[in-house]
Amino acid sequence: MESVLAEWLPALQIAPQRLHEAMRYAVLGGGKRVRPLLAFAAGEVAGAAIERVQHAAAAAELIHAYSLVHDDMPAMDDDALRRGKPTVHVEFDEATALLVGDALQSLAFDILAAQPLADDAAAQLKMVQLLAQAAGSRGMAGGQAIDLASVGKPLDLAELEFMHIHKTGALIRASVLLGAQCGALPDATAAALDRYAKCIGLAFQVVDDVLDAETPTATLGKTAGKDAANNKPTYVSLLGVTRARELALELRADACTALAPLGARAERLRQLADFVVERTF
Amino acid sequence: MESVLAEWLPALQIAPQRLHEAMRYAVLGGGKRVRPLLAFAAGEVAGAAIERVQHAAAAAELIHAYSLVHDDMPAMDDDALRRGKPTVHVEFDEATALLVGDALQSLAFDILAAQPLADDAAAQLKMVQLLAQAAGSRGMAGGQAIDLASVGKPLDLAELEFMHIHKTGALIRASVLLGAQCGALPDATAAALDRYAKCIGLAFQVVDDVLDAETPTATLGKTAGKDAANNKPTYVSLLGVTRARELALELRADACTALAPLGARAERLRQLADFVVERTF
Repeated sequence: MESVLAEWLPALQIAPQRLHEAMRYAVLGGGKRVRPLLAFAAGEVAGAAIERVQHAAAAAELIHAYSLVHDDMPAMDDDALRRGKPTVHVEFDEATALLVGDALQSLAFDILAAQPLADDAAAQLKMVQLLAQAAGSRGMAGGQAIDLASVGKPLDLAELEFMHIHKTGALIRASVLLGAQCGALPDATAAALDRYAKCIGLAFQVVDDVLDAETPTATLGKTAGKDAANNKPTYVSLLGVTRARELALELRADACTALAPLGARAERLRQLADFVVERTF
Repeated sequence: MESVLAEWLPALQIAPQRLHEAMRYAVLGGGKRVRPLLAFAAGEVAGAAIERVQHAAAAAELIHAYSLVHDDMPAMDDDALRRGKPTVHVEFDEATALLVGDALQSLAFDILAAQPLADDAAAQLKMVQLLAQAAGSRGMAGGQAIDLASVGKPLDLAELEFMHIHKTGALIRASVLLGAQCGALPDATAAALDRYAKCIGLAFQVVDDVLDAETPTATLGKTAGKDAANNKPTYVSLLGVTRARELALELRADACTALAPLGARAERLRQLADFVVERTF
């Protein structure tokens, strides 16, 4: 994944150099690559060629990377630390961070359209549409808008879930489905993956909230305790740490139940469910 | 075009409502619709069905609209007035403006992939790629990065042209080609349109610089005289108003020469060349 991303990102020598340097800084500076891992694992379920999945995975990761750059900006979460390094607007400047995010989003769609990734081009257009909707105002960007509007407001559990299904869940779901759509995907399998993705997306966020509350900044690689400091509702603030941890385990169990009909082909997706719930950063 | 855009933009009743309200405010608040007009006119050359071209035109206009929203933000040009109204970050807030731009970009790619726009899906994937590259770091976003880096620096004419070919030219070229690609487009026609688009894109910018220097804010609908105030190199600062006006006319002549082989089918493109050079706002 690292080399595929490095290959797609414009080289440092290409003008405008500072923008390209900042794009590479934003994307290649670490990250767990959860969305690519999910795409590869779902691709395995659908018997997809890795030479295809790697591009779909890169597109999803670039959307994620762009969202982090914009999310960290002063107008949004105003965060100075990401993946243990200064955020893009701190290392470069705000205007560059804005353009880095914009250009990374464009690059994601360039990648998704650049070469055959599905058995027919019409199916690949559906992949473009899936990613666009997952990223847009009824997906990730919409989730961030709901998140911003929720600062200082009492959300109940259903509202919190609605926010996260958009903010994190939509792109995680798209990552799983894009990986699988590079191969052969019967409707029943797609439905199972969809259910898995929804559970994993929420589990990811529940664990994020637990880690934000419990893990030191140095381990996390981003500023810890931000949500409480910003008076943002989280699974921890609504449920407490113990119940939030239980909820993550329940969601993992639901995710694995969804995979049951897929048998051994889904083993990596099960491992990723474990990773999502057991991760410590 | 207005009704197509209004149809594609999420309705006000759909959550997150404030984001959708701001997206509609950003897009539906006027604008010359030069890029859609170019797409429709180029579609006519290629015998494209208007039912297809309107979606390609909407996608190009949404990329343009998103770029204005981000460009007006305090981290970039810091402008309070656009199309005679407060800019999005002034009317709403900065975080909303950031997300509006992000979501409009996603929506553009959603539209371009949502339904058949070309005779085969593989050709339509090329349209997605064309728009992504025109918007990205080697196109519009790259041009904005070069623009920012040029503040207070002495650019020569070649460097100024390089900047504008990216910042404005790439999306204008894409608008022309996307419209034409909805129809039948032999290579020779594509080459003629490409040459036309390059000339028109530059002419558009030269006229923009003249208007910025000579037109009052009230007529322009955006803050006039910004470039000089920001010590930005322009065609007027490099050439003076008289020579800049001559250059615009020369570029129009070049654009029309490129159209000569296309005959009467290109009449609307010729009219648009006139409009671009003769416009007063």
